[in-house]
Amino acid sequence: METIDARVAESFARQGFMRNLGARLVEGSQGRCVIETDWSEGLTQQHGYFHAGVTAAIADSAAGYAAFSLMPEDASVLTVEYKINLINPADGERLRATGVVIKPGRTLMVARATVEAIRGDRAVQCGEFLATVFVLAGKPDAKLDVRR
Amino acid sequence: METIDARVAESFARQGFMRNLGARLVEGSQGRCVIETDWSEGLTQQHGYFHAGVTAAIADSAAGYAAFSLMPEDASVLTVEYKINLINPADGERLRATGVVIKPGRTLMVARATVEAIRGDRAVQCGEFLATVFVLAGKPDAKLDVRR
Amino acid sequence: METIDARVAESFARQGFMRNLGARLVEGSQGRCVIETDWSEGLTQQHGYFHAGVTAAIADSAAGYAAFSLMPEDASVLTVEYKINLINPADGERLRATGVVIKPGRTLMVARATVEAIRGDRAVQCGEFLATVFVLAGKPDAKLDVRR
Amino acid sequence: METIDARVAESFARQGFMRNLGARLVEGSQGRCVIETDWSEGLTQQHGYFHAGVTAAIADSAAGYAAFSLMPEDASVLTVEYKINLINPADGERLRATGVVIKPGRTLMVARATVEAIRGDRAVQCGEFLATVFVLAGKPDAKLDVRR
Repeated sequence: METIDARVAESFARQGFMRNLGARLVEGSQGRCVIETDWSEGLTQQHGYFHAGVTAAIADSAAGYAAFSLMPEDASVLTVEYKINLINPADGERLRATGVVIKPGRTLMVARATVEAIRGDRAVQCGEFLATVFVLAGKPDAKLDVRR
Repeated sequence: METIDARVAESFARQGFMRNLGARLVEGSQGRCVIETDWSEGLTQQHGYFHAGVTAAIADSAAGYAAFSLMPEDASVLTVEYKINLINPADGERLRATGVVIKPGRTLMVARATVEAIRGDRAVQCGEFLATVFVLAGKPDAKLDVRR
Repeated sequence: METIDARVAESFARQGFMRNLGARLVEGSQGRCVIETDWSEGLTQQHGYFHAGVTAAIADSAAGYAAFSLMPEDASVLTVEYKINLINPADGERLRATGVVIKPGRTLMVARATVEAIRGDRAVQCGEFLATVFVLAGKPDAKLDVRR
Repeated sequence: METIDARVAESFARQGFMRNLGARLVEGSQGRCVIETDWSEGLTQQHGYFHAGVTAAIADSAAGYAAFSLMPEDASVLTVEYKINLINPADGERLRATGVVIKPGRTLMVARATVEAIRGDRAVQCGEFLATVFVLAGKPDAKLDVRR
């Protein structure tokens, strides 16, 4: 699909944690990225809603890949820091994060994401997210040889 | 073990997401909470390190339960917002989050957490975390009857 | 002017620090607030731009009064916490902060603000701001009898 | 005084905004910086306490100069972003910010600051601050020729 860059799709596919969350890449191109996941018991906090950790994780990936889609071929992406406000319970059948770059840059980018909990045709914003992302130039994004 | 309050243990056990992450409650009492998890493929980002989402999730739970341990019996805990700085790659066999309340309160509490990546006997701080937590008074922490 | 609530104007006028900054209340009603200030030597950082402290201070007031404009008569406003990204140098003749409530509430509100540096007819965003605001119910906003 | 680097003192002296706040550099060396200011009407919010903007501004400068004190001679310092929690009213005769670098680096540093309100011999923490700072290499810190 033309709204997902091959490079974004390939990197996303290497994130074991996104697979674990059942997260799907819905868009990922030109400074914008959308990621969704469906409710399951393994994603809950103590009241049965989506855990804030899931909300934050897909927001972080959406913001990071929105930024990555604007980076040169030989760069990889690192989240420096982020803040998230959990503004409503993440109560839905599905969670959707939409990341957008608000400040591109050669070394740093700033991206915002919103997260919505969806039930039927009703979407309620549950997260507001703001991140600083680092452009690791000259380090193509690939699985490093990590000793375990 | 006396360093884990029964109420904290019971609430933690209801978090499907913590189980998913393989997270263990190591301490949880008197405004302090420690949570650990071991490396596995399902917790990785694209380079094979722990995903920032895991770092943040256990920090969030450690901060939240540190606060919960100071709350009255009939209260439950909600994270209002947090910020995390990812200060080193989360490269280790194990991840440990230590949450401490820096400002108790009747309605809001502020908690800080640090996250370390551990390999053998070497621990490197990978996350610095700061959260605002809400004391939901008169709502005992329990699984809500959430329609799915 | 009808876009400024009397209650907002009156509270703003009591902020010695806003006077110090030469800040003007331009809008303040229905969950939205705009504050501006002109460049002067006393507002600079070491390179002669507006100091980040000025950018943050007018963003904080814009977000806080946006929230205050939605609060009941007998409430006052407290900023719990905020995050700001300084995304471009605050290089201009004038600085403008626009605050908007993104989540109203009885106890907490979440507000976002953007800050622009303006030169002639060109405005460049220099700050992205996200805050949690507390509704201090039953405490009308007024000068407290503060011992000094 | 040996606890203040000449380079830090010189840059601090160029901040018109710090002069405006009556801020004094108390320490500034080896990754640590302390800044103080006394109460005056021009630093207040609507209840007569120190304005959050003052708390944040001296925390920002304390964190920034703590980082600057670890940078090479030819570098200057930029705050990328910060978060602050305002944990108690800033009610005192004097405000003191203490900044400490928690992660040095060639391009980015992370610094934490705490702010205390002091009355007589009693100090109460009013702010908890966490910032990301950019090392602008090859750009010695000096007043730029800024057109106004």
